[in-house]
Amino acid sequence: MSHKDAYPLQEADLLPLSIGAGFLGTGGGGNPYVGMLRSRELLRKGAKVDILPLDALPDDAWISEVGGIGAPVVSVEKIEQGSECLRAMRAVEETAGVSMAALICAEIGGANSMEPIITAAQSGLPVLDGDGMGRAFPEVQMTTFFIYGAKAAPAAISDDKSNTIIFRDIKDMYWLERFARDTSVAMGAAAGLAIAPMRMDFVRRSAVPGTMTQALEIGRTVLAARARRQNVVDRVIATTGAKLFFTGKVTDIRRELKGGFARGEARIAGSGDWAGCEGRIAIQNENLVLWIDGEPVVMVPDLIINLDLETGEPITTEVLRYGQRLAVVGLPAHDLLKTPQAMAVVGPSAFGYPELAFVPLALGPIEKGMT
Amino acid sequence: MSHKDAYPLQEADLLPLSIGAGFLGTGGGGNPYVGMLRSRELLRKGAKVDILPLDALPDDAWISEVGGIGAPVVSVEKIEQGSECLRAMRAVEETAGVSMAALICAEIGGANSMEPIITAAQSGLPVLDGDGMGRAFPEVQMTTFFIYGAKAAPAAISDDKSNTIIFRDIKDMYWLERFARDTSVAMGAAAGLAIAPMRMDFVRRSAVPGTMTQALEIGRTVLAARARRQNVVDRVIATTGAKLFFTGKVTDIRRELKGGFARGEARIAGSGDWAGCEGRIAIQNENLVLWIDGEPVVMVPDLIINLDLETGEPITTEVLRYGQRLAVVGLPAHDLLKTPQAMAVVGPSAFGYPELAFVPLALGPIEKGMT
Repeated sequence: MSHKDAYPLQEADLLPLSIGAGFLGTGGGGNPYVGMLRSRELLRKGAKVDILPLDALPDDAWISEVGGIGAPVVSVEKIEQGSECLRAMRAVEETAGVSMAALICAEIGGANSMEPIITAAQSGLPVLDGDGMGRAFPEVQMTTFFIYGAKAAPAAISDDKSNTIIFRDIKDMYWLERFARDTSVAMGAAAGLAIAPMRMDFVRRSAVPGTMTQALEIGRTVLAARARRQNVVDRVIATTGAKLFFTGKVTDIRRELKGGFARGEARIAGSGDWAGCEGRIAIQNENLVLWIDGEPVVMVPDLIINLDLETGEPITTEVLRYGQRLAVVGLPAHDLLKTPQAMAVVGPSAFGYPELAFVPLALGPIEKGMT
Repeated sequence: MSHKDAYPLQEADLLPLSIGAGFLGTGGGGNPYVGMLRSRELLRKGAKVDILPLDALPDDAWISEVGGIGAPVVSVEKIEQGSECLRAMRAVEETAGVSMAALICAEIGGANSMEPIITAAQSGLPVLDGDGMGRAFPEVQMTTFFIYGAKAAPAAISDDKSNTIIFRDIKDMYWLERFARDTSVAMGAAAGLAIAPMRMDFVRRSAVPGTMTQALEIGRTVLAARARRQNVVDRVIATTGAKLFFTGKVTDIRRELKGGFARGEARIAGSGDWAGCEGRIAIQNENLVLWIDGEPVVMVPDLIINLDLETGEPITTEVLRYGQRLAVVGLPAHDLLKTPQAMAVVGPSAFGYPELAFVPLALGPIEKGMT
């Protein structure tokens, strides 16, 4: 399958899509499981969801980015009632006086991979093959859409009690994050957010392309490897372009809720090629930076993914435990996340590491510390 | 002056109005001083504000209740930029598709007495002679409008950075309070709230009538007594229908921030007629209950006001101090605040005193404890 063509999403695609979304969640993004069940239910009832390439619609079509939002802690990015994003999207349409032509995912990593699919199944709109992160990030403004100039308003948020609140005039994307986050907490930490309508020509330039298909293919690779009893870690690395950066055993894990986020650090004693080395991973919901023997080797926005060394299962940051044996792999972020504009929003300094000058994974000292 | 007639608010009315509003704040409601200065500035620039009796407008005229909202702690109910309520009102008009005919005050007690006057001066609309509390209360839903069925949406909130958020579909008035409160905190604890449009026939039935004029007259009484070096406490009691319930010296004051509110308790050693008795006042921003020797004698929704024994100045709960000499007076709340519907929202149990059955001040054991 190529992401150059439109294709209908099948029920059988949902499991691999959720597995791939978990991988691209880079340790965070919430669990796509509940959303997968809800999507499956809608498809079984006859809903049809088409995945469209970014060149399928005309320039002036209106696109709606939808996603779940909650207190960015364990398991709260699930949506219970299931129509939150739909109601939020309709409120944006009404406020802006436009009709949406398609949906796009805010973040392919984790639970939000499923939100546009649910909304598509409910509304009959197609879903574009792409998203605003190519991974998971903890905050609303951390998308390529906002980085490249999407408007902060009118956006809307809705909860499972049919409360709907419209962010009509909002100073900038950081204020939108603040208001949407606080409102989602007041809503019980499970709400659907739809941002301001975006024109298709803008989305075509600013979306991370092909990520629905990418997630689907990663999931299929994992399932195929499991079925054939192949080494899942090896197969994922072979097919995704990911690189193995470290293997070892978790020796220390520290987590705290700080500023509304789950922040922390994991320490890993190297094994195999890395015996005698120490790995260290900084966490803010997602994995942010990997150091080996004190040397930063992968950092945001590049993807750092902890896989269970035996099963290849992605390990989310909230279930990291002492004694787990991990394969730490890195995957280069899309180029749209590595421009100077992007660095200001999703680079190391935006996450509290001003001392780290971003070194893209592909060009970095990959062999460093692999003594 | 009678509140049966319309009258233009003069610059010279602002000081007595703010003094009367301070009195009706029953220890809370925020300081009207900044709002008074802002109103004065607008009147000096030529703005005209008419105060209309509740029978002046036709039944189908739309009325806007506006007020400042913030974290309900010390001094935060002031509005810096000055157009917050106007923007919120305009957003409600646009969302509901109506034009407002007049403004009404959410709460006459404290800083919110000035908000509709500022908005009136900016918009050219008149202000109705009445409000939703006849005093101050800490929460949005604690108005006669909401008690008697005002809709929770569409309402709007705006801040000094021109962020405007619309509460478009809101389950009930308690959810409006929650969302508006949390948003105001995100806005930096100073925002303007406009609630859903109300028809004049509803407002005529549900408003506490004549409270703009009442505040003005209380303030004039205080100023006249000061000018004539009369005893201010005596004069206020003589002209307002308030009753003196206790005099004494503050011996203990305990305050804590709990659930977003300043809660606490003051103890007062009786003096004069109350020598040997102990008074105790429960506080949640406003004064809630007065006990004398363990016997509750005045309680919400009736008004409990602490006046400086010498100057007659109302003492707000945040400036209560050890050693202050107080006259504690009580004033009956309007009958609209004492129905069974009202009890559920503003009675003792709504403030966490389910053990207190409300006994109206006028009927209460006024002489109890006065041994």
